[in-house]
Amino acid sequence: MTEKPLILVTNDDGINAPGIRTLISVMNTIGDVVVVAPDSPQSGMGHAITVDATLYVNKVKVDDGPQTEYRCSGTPADCVKLAIRELLNRKPDLCVSGINHGSNSSINVIYSGTMSAAVEAGIEGVPAIGFSLLNYAWDANFEASKSFVENITKEVLKNKLPDGVVLNVNIPNLPLKDIKGIKVCRQAKGNWVEAFDKRQNPSGKDYYWLSGEFINLDSGTDTDEHALENGYISVVPTQFDLTAHKFLKELNTWNLNR
Amino acid sequence: MTEKPLILVTNDDGINAPGIRTLISVMNTIGDVVVVAPDSPQSGMGHAITVDATLYVNKVKVDDGPQTEYRCSGTPADCVKLAIRELLNRKPDLCVSGINHGSNSSINVIYSGTMSAAVEAGIEGVPAIGFSLLNYAWDANFEASKSFVENITKEVLKNKLPDGVVLNVNIPNLPLKDIKGIKVCRQAKGNWVEAFDKRQNPSGKDYYWLSGEFINLDSGTDTDEHALENGYISVVPTQFDLTAHKFLKELNTWNLNR
Repeated sequence: MTEKPLILVTNDDGINAPGIRTLISVMNTIGDVVVVAPDSPQSGMGHAITVDATLYVNKVKVDDGPQTEYRCSGTPADCVKLAIRELLNRKPDLCVSGINHGSNSSINVIYSGTMSAAVEAGIEGVPAIGFSLLNYAWDANFEASKSFVENITKEVLKNKLPDGVVLNVNIPNLPLKDIKGIKVCRQAKGNWVEAFDKRQNPSGKDYYWLSGEFINLDSGTDTDEHALENGYISVVPTQFDLTAHKFLKELNTWNLNR
Repeated sequence: MTEKPLILVTNDDGINAPGIRTLISVMNTIGDVVVVAPDSPQSGMGHAITVDATLYVNKVKVDDGPQTEYRCSGTPADCVKLAIRELLNRKPDLCVSGINHGSNSSINVIYSGTMSAAVEAGIEGVPAIGFSLLNYAWDANFEASKSFVENITKEVLKNKLPDGVVLNVNIPNLPLKDIKGIKVCRQAKGNWVEAFDKRQNPSGKDYYWLSGEFINLDSGTDTDEHALENGYISVVPTQFDLTAHKFLKELNTWNLNR
């Protein structure tokens, strides 16, 4: 590629989050960067899109650097749609989302706004990567992530992701010297065991807070959870053809047409 | 099964939508029904969950019938989590979601609140089906759907869905005599080509409405789109292991660890 790649950057923690600021700083060393990110945190939004409400977009200057930036009132998936259809002059060469404050490994990929942005780009035929650091804190330290984010991004630009596949990258919350490397993994089977916290509001009406604990139900050593627990960065190729192809044959033997 | 199956019913159009009322009436002929559904429409919510806000639940009586009903301030996925963890005395034998007013075929599965509820149940180990009718109107006619919904539900209760698989059922908007039968399909490759409608609010500020057109990019005759276009009901087995297993080997040849 002789001209610089056009890189779309987004996230779900909002345009001011330290994670996206780190991602922008790395992408500025690789290509021409346009940021289109939510104006407020959107965690847990899954693949939500705004179908029944208006969307606002504002060009902003958040910090120094060559990037162009827009903040958007919508979800991460909205940001990607708006960027590709309205804001960018040409189709981007890459979309990166994150760096998320918190894990998107295992079943978390389903609830993840970070990954929904990457998937949305993938649906539009744009190679895409979601990056997440296993630290939910706003002041998480993203320094150790930088060189890995750079390497993975360059590999995606050099090689080609197949049609219909994006990458889900999770980074353990460790100092650089303790990160053992990168492992290609499958998504671990796991779920959240919710413990709803039931309270009463000042008027005496019951309400709930969702809380819970993630449980890894997968004893495999080829999973993202296993890699992360052992100090590796996990890279899971992630698809949006949700068909359970292996079950098609058996389902065809069912007596669905009576 | 000697005792009646316990069936959890939810949707994303809200507890008062004609589609869920139809689904409840069919499920009342099959099992003991508990409804936990959003109090307002949640279309396009994808797999959103409420992590940073309170959840309210109210026991309600919407219409006659033996079912127990709760309306919830959350998303479809919230409803399923709350039902399984807080509201039901035992794990349900089945979760059905819908009948959605509008298609959830092809890539729409990604944006679908209806299917997110089914997937959430599947994650919890509950067999689940999402039903959708290809008519977005509130006063859509669900009569022709009834016998098919009943048959498919009974087949799911009789046979076993494998762990990690739920069903995505879409029903063409046709009178009963014109529906040719049921086809087991794969998810068609397709996407939405958005045309954002840019307007000005009364204060002169630009905003956008998301609109667009669905494009079927798949010429296969084994897809949900093909079945629906030809007058068949489509049944797609749908999984939430998003790993692109076929790409793992090639991705392992990349130079990710420099």
